[in-house]
Amino acid sequence: MRRILALAVFLLLFIGQACKTKVEKSENTESSSSEQAIFPKGEAGNAANFTGNAYNYGLVANDSIYNTLVGNVYFEKSARSNWHLHPSGQILIVLDGLGYHQLEGQPRETMKKGDVIKVPANTRHWHGATENNSLTQMYILPKTENGFVTWLEPVTDEQYTSNN
Amino acid sequence: MRRILALAVFLLLFIGQACKTKVEKSENTESSSSEQAIFPKGEAGNAANFTGNAYNYGLVANDSIYNTLVGNVYFEKSARSNWHLHPSGQILIVLDGLGYHQLEGQPRETMKKGDVIKVPANTRHWHGATENNSLTQMYILPKTENGFVTWLEPVTDEQYTSNN
Repeated sequence: MRRILALAVFLLLFIGQACKTKVEKSENTESSSSEQAIFPKGEAGNAANFTGNAYNYGLVANDSIYNTLVGNVYFEKSARSNWHLHPSGQILIVLDGLGYHQLEGQPRETMKKGDVIKVPANTRHWHGATENNSLTQMYILPKTENGFVTWLEPVTDEQYTSNN
Repeated sequence: MRRILALAVFLLLFIGQACKTKVEKSENTESSSSEQAIFPKGEAGNAANFTGNAYNYGLVANDSIYNTLVGNVYFEKSARSNWHLHPSGQILIVLDGLGYHQLEGQPRETMKKGDVIKVPANTRHWHGATENNSLTQMYILPKTENGFVTWLEPVTDEQYTSNN
């Protein structure tokens, strides 16, 4: 009878461990699945136009059918664009993370997953990640027959960190 | 001894069931976590233009600055649009799930997270979720000065399930 008891205890412990392992495995899958990016990281942005590391992944190249340029930028923590402007404005759509954007003469604003920012035509502005979070952000440039972008000077640390 | 054996068998079955329940719960959590939406579900689409349940969430309303309409559609499993066309075409960007789309006269194609579909101007087409997966899909309508959409007849079950 002791043998049977020992066998029963052993089986219980074994099944308990197998069960725990299965649950842990399932939880790991969950974690990696929820962090899976929608688009590849893309190509490093031109260092002359960014502070820190930003990557661009083109989604729709310009053509005369849509006259619309679409892409995704992944900003690492603290990375941001230079000041720049678009002749027909720009639409930003935040897919993940936290970022800042600023129109010249207005306060810096925080943007988060799901936010849509409409940047007016020919308006100096910048955008990027916050100090502690990366930012995944789609952009849409409409009416590209008017042009794409004019790059300007870098955003200083003082401008970047100012929340007034 | 038979009592002990019966008890052991009972315990094994009980623990096995508890373990199964825990794993199933964990998998449900995984599923909901990976589906954490970027945008709210939105408003139910006009039943006259869809088969099954589809929800529209507007991101950028039309105006004369961008002449670009942007939104997100969430299709439940098996839901799809009617046949329709856009005077300046449409850009689809899949954010999550699995779907189908078809241009008239061409085979039905499967689309998945990260895919970009360019629909030509004035081309009859439809899009929606697969039989077993929901679909989260952004759309961009450029050059809205030409109009938005012309809705046509429903996609039949035969058209929907045809993969030739």
